[in-house]
Amino acid sequence: MPYPRPDPVQPADDTARTLARGLLKDATHAALAWTDPASGAPGISRIAFGLGPDGGPLTLISALAPHRAALAAHPAAAVMVGEPGEKGDPLTHPRLMLRVNAAFLDRTAPEHGAIRSHWLQQHPTAKLYVDFPDFSFVRLAPVSALLNGGFARAFHLTPADLA
Amino acid sequence: MPYPRPDPVQPADDTARTLARGLLKDATHAALAWTDPASGAPGISRIAFGLGPDGGPLTLISALAPHRAALAAHPAAAVMVGEPGEKGDPLTHPRLMLRVNAAFLDRTAPEHGAIRSHWLQQHPTAKLYVDFPDFSFVRLAPVSALLNGGFARAFHLTPADLA
Repeated sequence: MPYPRPDPVQPADDTARTLARGLLKDATHAALAWTDPASGAPGISRIAFGLGPDGGPLTLISALAPHRAALAAHPAAAVMVGEPGEKGDPLTHPRLMLRVNAAFLDRTAPEHGAIRSHWLQQHPTAKLYVDFPDFSFVRLAPVSALLNGGFARAFHLTPADLA
Repeated sequence: MPYPRPDPVQPADDTARTLARGLLKDATHAALAWTDPASGAPGISRIAFGLGPDGGPLTLISALAPHRAALAAHPAAAVMVGEPGEKGDPLTHPRLMLRVNAAFLDRTAPEHGAIRSHWLQQHPTAKLYVDFPDFSFVRLAPVSALLNGGFARAFHLTPADLA
């Protein structure tokens, strides 16, 4: 039986851009793929996720998390946002995968206060730990993205498509 | 202000083993971290997930998925299961992170029929594509695991703890 094999990933269009931006805006957590500095093998973690005042993706991480040392050693990482609903095939729910470069934000940086305030609006429970010295904001600067809207509906996006 | 710094990850106990096995049993999808063969950077995907007749973690993937070629080149990967609920801080919901080695199952292997039948019980919509020649079952053999039951409740687990 013939099985169709179109080029599975299309360039972004306005519908894809709108969907991708909505997934980023709504996400309060994400999955993060990182490189284990000891073995070089991939690791994975759930992270807090949000957009900064400039619209750029951010996370807030503890120094106790395994990905803290991993991102410091290997800033290239990948992020996935977009939760499947309760019903239907989870693989038909849209999700956005970002290739990112992680950059730790110094607590003394001039923008730290604005980022902290903005973050707490979307993540109110973070007020319990955001000021602990072990916690740091990390920018997750997009390099490229893949939007998967379900089987055979995939799109490549650039950082400009997401902004 | 002093900030407590206990060893953040404890050895598994029976409660942790039961929770980890329940997360594996209930998961129908997962996040997969893989290594991009072109760049060496981490990639991430949502995958279908289930346990085989032998209790071992499995996925069913399309040759069109970017992680197909990645797993063939670098079988070391990481899997996360355990969905956050609708309410509360997503980082307080339990999740299990597995280091795995991926092994493709040949369609002509004697166990393929039993794995296919077992998979379709948990993933009924997969009957639409399970027999397409581009789809393969992949065993995700656990190497080690980390259970995170929320802040400061993390446990190391071995493959035996999960079986």
